Amino acid sequence: NNVLPYQWLALNDLLPDAEPSHAIMIFKIAAGEAGGQFGGYCFQDSDVFKWLEAVGYLLAQEADPDLAEKADQVIELIARAQQPDGYLNTYFTVAEPGRHFTNLRDCHELYCAGHLFEAAVAYYEATGKTKLLEVACHYADHIDRTFGPDPGKKKGYDGHPEIELALVKLYRATGEERYLRLSKYFIDERGRQPHYFDLEAEERGDTRPYWNIFGHSYSQSHLPVREQKTAEGHAVRAMYLYSAVADVAALTGDESLAEACKVLWENVTNRRMYITGAVGSSAYGESFTIDYDLPNDRAYAETCATIGLVFWAHRMLHLEMDAKYADVMERALYNGVLSGISLDGERFFYVNPLAVWPEACARRHDLQHVKVTRQKWFACACCPPNLARLIASLGKYIYSYSEEEKTVYAHLFTGSTARFDLTGEEITITQKSAYPWEGEVEFEVNPAKETEFTLAVRIPGWCRGAELVVNGSPVSFAPFLRRGYVYLKREWHPGDRVLLRLPMPVERVYAHPRVRANAGRVALQRGPLVYCLEEIDNGPNLPGILLPVEAEVEARYLPDFLGGVVVLETEGLRLEEEAWEGGLYSPVKPKTRRVKIRAIPYFVWNNRGPGEMLVWIREA
Amino acid sequence: NNVLPYQWLALNDLLPDAEPSHAIMIFKIAAGEAGGQFGGYCFQDSDVFKWLEAVGYLLAQEADPDLAEKADQVIELIARAQQPDGYLNTYFTVAEPGRHFTNLRDCHELYCAGHLFEAAVAYYEATGKTKLLEVACHYADHIDRTFGPDPGKKKGYDGHPEIELALVKLYRATGEERYLRLSKYFIDERGRQPHYFDLEAEERGDTRPYWNIFGHSYSQSHLPVREQKTAEGHAVRAMYLYSAVADVAALTGDESLAEACKVLWENVTNRRMYITGAVGSSAYGESFTIDYDLPNDRAYAETCATIGLVFWAHRMLHLEMDAKYADVMERALYNGVLSGISLDGERFFYVNPLAVWPEACARRHDLQHVKVTRQKWFACACCPPNLARLIASLGKYIYSYSEEEKTVYAHLFTGSTARFDLTGEEITITQKSAYPWEGEVEFEVNPAKETEFTLAVRIPGWCRGAELVVNGSPVSFAPFLRRGYVYLKREWHPGDRVLLRLPMPVERVYAHPRVRANAGRVALQRGPLVYCLEEIDNGPNLPGILLPVEAEVEARYLPDFLGGVVVLETEGLRLEEEAWEGGLYSPVKPKTRRVKIRAIPYFVWNNRGPGEMLVWIREA
Repeated sequence: NNVLPYQWLALNDLLPDAEPSHAIMIFKIAAGEAGGQFGGYCFQDSDVFKWLEAVGYLLAQEADPDLAEKADQVIELIARAQQPDGYLNTYFTVAEPGRHFTNLRDCHELYCAGHLFEAAVAYYEATGKTKLLEVACHYADHIDRTFGPDPGKKKGYDGHPEIELALVKLYRATGEERYLRLSKYFIDERGRQPHYFDLEAEERGDTRPYWNIFGHSYSQSHLPVREQKTAEGHAVRAMYLYSAVADVAALTGDESLAEACKVLWENVTNRRMYITGAVGSSAYGESFTIDYDLPNDRAYAETCATIGLVFWAHRMLHLEMDAKYADVMERALYNGVLSGISLDGERFFYVNPLAVWPEACARRHDLQHVKVTRQKWFACACCPPNLARLIASLGKYIYSYSEEEKTVYAHLFTGSTARFDLTGEEITITQKSAYPWEGEVEFEVNPAKETEFTLAVRIPGWCRGAELVVNGSPVSFAPFLRRGYVYLKREWHPGDRVLLRLPMPVERVYAHPRVRANAGRVALQRGPLVYCLEEIDNGPNLPGILLPVEAEVEARYLPDFLGGVVVLETEGLRLEEEAWEGGLYSPVKPKTRRVKIRAIPYFVWNNRGPGEMLVWIREA
Repeated sequence: NNVLPYQWLALNDLLPDAEPSHAIMIFKIAAGEAGGQFGGYCFQDSDVFKWLEAVGYLLAQEADPDLAEKADQVIELIARAQQPDGYLNTYFTVAEPGRHFTNLRDCHELYCAGHLFEAAVAYYEATGKTKLLEVACHYADHIDRTFGPDPGKKKGYDGHPEIELALVKLYRATGEERYLRLSKYFIDERGRQPHYFDLEAEERGDTRPYWNIFGHSYSQSHLPVREQKTAEGHAVRAMYLYSAVADVAALTGDESLAEACKVLWENVTNRRMYITGAVGSSAYGESFTIDYDLPNDRAYAETCATIGLVFWAHRMLHLEMDAKYADVMERALYNGVLSGISLDGERFFYVNPLAVWPEACARRHDLQHVKVTRQKWFACACCPPNLARLIASLGKYIYSYSEEEKTVYAHLFTGSTARFDLTGEEITITQKSAYPWEGEVEFEVNPAKETEFTLAVRIPGWCRGAELVVNGSPVSFAPFLRRGYVYLKREWHPGDRVLLRLPMPVERVYAHPRVRANAGRVALQRGPLVYCLEEIDNGPNLPGILLPVEAEVEARYLPDFLGGVVVLETEGLRLEEEAWEGGLYSPVKPKTRRVKIRAIPYFVWNNRGPGEMLVWIREA
């Protein structure tokens, strides 16, 4: 109800006191329908495309004539901004005509094209309307004529991966194999020597040193993709690239690409990921750093990067059905992604640290990237429409299915109705659950008539002691459990019920001993949700709080609190400031006093005004 | 033996593989004796002056014909670079002639003048030679003609305080009251509205915004000095300013300036100082931030700022004889100052963090200011000659004396012989001690003949249970103890002995509960020395080490280790990496194993190659 209309206002520069977007205006200028200069970043088009993509996902679920009309009008505008040869990028059309594809390293042209393709596919699949898809294919064909291994074509690829995964979507929607080949070409070419970005810079006569200290690893082009073993550089770029690699590996059966994905996955999720599923621990270059370097206060943890991890995890499932991917997908979704948006849908975090001291953020330059309240909009507004399109497409992440294996995989647990056609008969599966607040999930399976297929239900990695009941009978599912999924193969009858019981005790979670920032600290988790302390509940100086090992933490659902959440409550200790004797340093150990502690789900933090926040609590 | 000859090579650009200084060369250019362009920073002259000042202090202690000859030659060169009107600054003479005193905010002209004055006084007092003092007075007179309250004079002051304290020295050396008045004028004028730096910028036609986010607080000119309650901005500037304020307050009896000093002292030492005596917790602006914001890994803690704190503490003693000032002076000297220089005297830290993880420093932009080994030299080489002049003048900090009160104050404990003339009779006091390794200090008092005066001996704030023995008889000194000094007023006879016994158990020191970075952590201190863990002794991942509350820490003197130091040894725990099960996060608490722990004095860290270092250890 709120998010897309709000973002429409933003894209049209109609939000008071927010950073202007320019995004719709520059399409008008590019179409020759308005005067003025280019405004915003060179990749501003992508915000419009991501919004359109989100509208597509929404319209796939329910009619919204008002949004649809706005979208159709924008699509017409986009079409009018397209050049006769198919080229479509407002920045180059308005600000640098004649310089198309001369700076792939920095200018995001193919990145923007990718977002166009994603929007086109989503809108077409939702509405059946072909206009935007035609625009997309026209541009894709132009790009395909321009790039590739054939003599005379450019051998380049974009500094910001995105088109690779988008071409796969376009291939899937149109069946046009050229698009898949082009995607694979971009992946194969990336990082080869002599380096395209160097050649291209030379051709431009650009002799300035590259702005960032990472060099080509910033754009994951420091090595051919198959030789990359660690996640490097800009985290969003990395996630988008790896997503495409997983796609292409799955579609082409390229084992070396699949292997690269798996190696990178282990590196990211076992060494470079926050407990919230967020990635990118350095503001400089919005980037990965080194293994186990996960500072909480200085985290970058960009919302878009966490969204990118969801994309990647989802694609890894299709490369290799293993619940470890869905575990990370769920972790990112419920924590590091959702934290990017306020409960009212109108405020956004770009950066999602795991510890915040607002006074320090206001004065420390090394914390200047941390905003202490969600913002209305951003000059670089990648995150808000990225959130919109992910949340609007959540349905795509709940299940996967394989016609070949006659299997439906249930990855996520959320109230929903889904329809499949696996066997020639339509199968409807309805989930009922109060997840993530409660761990009981009911699947009602309704094939049009009885039919044999497999329902593979994920047992979350966070859960111990899951129970499965089919039509009232407990199932000892160990024999049917493979890589985190219980494979229930049977003849399903209309009205069959599968009840999944996931015990949800409060868990204390510890970080690997090499995560220096978290030594001696514990995070509270319940189900898929990571919890945090907020100043408004616990007073200031949260690092002074200590959670005793033996403290019982109780979970309580509060229906009227923060939209209805389960809070965690216990008794802990905190350093007594009042009892402190002496100055800044003293040989007398600070006293502690007993205090009540309340933790709230991380994703709802900062919905009650600015204040301190802390995920990793000291444990006594 | 080493430091000043080494620095001479540096100033002459004769160090291989080190950043060039240009400092001597630019004097030659300014004197018209060499061609070429200005090199280095606009304040490069100050490095030469600080070196000369250090040479002065050294020559006051012992003859060194080689150094003296070099110094005399440089002094001649400096004199030849002076303009006929007294003006002396190579940057403006070479690079911006005709722009003298047009950008006091940024260009350090009066700062460099201050360092000239300090050098001149030191060299004159050591050698009796007047050449440099004449140069200094000629320039000081020029400055006095240029600045001041009289109509037609400039109403400015320097962006980097320094001349204020130097003018006090010049006043003391020459008796010229104009210099004291000018110093007070600069202090009084600072921070008044309309703001001189704004007027000056307007006059230059400079409309660019000031480069740093702090505005005028960067240079402590955001408010009149008497209205400043918290230490703000660039830490070295702050220390130099406050030092001058203390001087002028003591000399003029200005109560409002004295009060400002005391308020700022409480703010710095009770809220914004590292346990090593280092100040300045942010690299950006090399600056103070907010109360209790003392991150260990990102500390700036510039060597020069800690040296500045020694200057200030010393001057506070003369404003108000209270051992709390000497305590801080000693803390800074033995820890945050000495850490700036290697044991061989040829390598330097500019930045002195309290926790170092070299791999992260190599990759994290927010740690790029942290060098993981001491450097040969710096493009901005303020720290090395500042260390040289402080260490060479250490004698000045051991005692103070008051002829009026017929009192000698012993602040520091170190093997030394000092001569005083309080009573018309020369008094020699010899200290013998293995301090800081042992707490026993013997004072042998030798007046030329018996004479009554007071020897006031400091009881360090870190010490509990001090004992005092005079000529073999224990003294119950409580009645004679005032603000940390025991006042021994008696008729002293040649050969009288005062034995001070300072028990030196290993102390566990805790930070104020609001120092978030140190919650749950402990530092080890013995006597005045703060200790740290180094990777070479304790293995990597120092944050994984845990010091149990009950662990006995033993002190052991190792004569052949790091030049002879007391190390601290105990048994502690550390997180077991090998026993960790699972990936990055796990509900299973990491196991610990017993390990031997060795701590070394902080100031000798990094003398055995790069590696991790940690001051604040987790306590179990």
